Amino acid sequence: MQRTDFSQANCPIARTLDLVGEWWSLLIIREAFLGITRYDDFQRRLGISRNALTDRLKKLVDGGVLARQPVAEGARREEYVLTKMGDDLVTVVVAMLQWGDRWLILPGEPLSRMVETATGHAVATLEVTSNDGRPLGRAELGLAGASGHAGSAAQSEQRRA
Amino acid sequence: MQRTDFSQANCPIARTLDLVGEWWSLLIIREAFLGITRYDDFQRRLGISRNALTDRLKKLVDGGVLARQPVAEGARREEYVLTKMGDDLVTVVVAMLQWGDRWLILPGEPLSRMVETATGHAVATLEVTSNDGRPLGRAELGLAGASGHAGSAAQSEQRRA
Repeated sequence: MQRTDFSQANCPIARTLDLVGEWWSLLIIREAFLGITRYDDFQRRLGISRNALTDRLKKLVDGGVLARQPVAEGARREEYVLTKMGDDLVTVVVAMLQWGDRWLILPGEPLSRMVETATGHAVATLEVTSNDGRPLGRAELGLAGASGHAGSAAQSEQRRA
Repeated sequence: MQRTDFSQANCPIARTLDLVGEWWSLLIIREAFLGITRYDDFQRRLGISRNALTDRLKKLVDGGVLARQPVAEGARREEYVLTKMGDDLVTVVVAMLQWGDRWLILPGEPLSRMVETATGHAVATLEVTSNDGRPLGRAELGLAGASGHAGSAAQSEQRRA
């Protein structure tokens, strides 16, 4: 049996990185989650060059993460809004935010939290669980890919032996 | 009131991207989750240049995501293993994997799933919920940052007005 192998071409993680896994792109998405929609606002808040911003916005629109729409009916000026596909990146954004808060924020620095606006309470910590809700540690997890074989690290070592 | 504002310097998402949000770095982490530990195995599987791989591994070790350790007690050869901090990236990896499967895999292409090795069952779909388990959509979410103000898109527009 072969170790689970994702070629760059068909791995959903690699494809996700291709589309949104680039520093500026993910910061643009972060701003979009904060409600930013205007080109000039993205530009000013991120301090990104116009060339770079235009390039990243085009890629995100072409990829279906953002949509361009008139700021008002009949208006010529356009804004950029998250599509349903873009909205669905919320788990990626929250996973990064929570991990960063846990590991990269120094004692005394303020934490950043995703909150439910209605209550002001922080959202629950994302956790990988089984379908019946048991928390799963990394040692209990494996990837089942194109080959259909699930493999944990330990099993792969055995297979290779 | 000000719109919630993360400078690049203190945003946990930006910090996370700085450390692991780079195409090769996240693919190295993906391979580490699959059980890859040896330099040559990373190199061969990713088809990455040795310069680029050495650079990325150093950054991940310096940042605390991977640790170098002898392959066996007293051995000179070293391997790279995920630290606890690295293990904890599982939510980021699973969020990207599940999003990629939902949005970037074409009909007929095989899905890639994170599974519980013991049962072979796919892990639960990550979902942003309140602490009492209610699923929350993007419109119900805001970010509370350094300023302590939570802001949704709609509220921010009101504040600006």
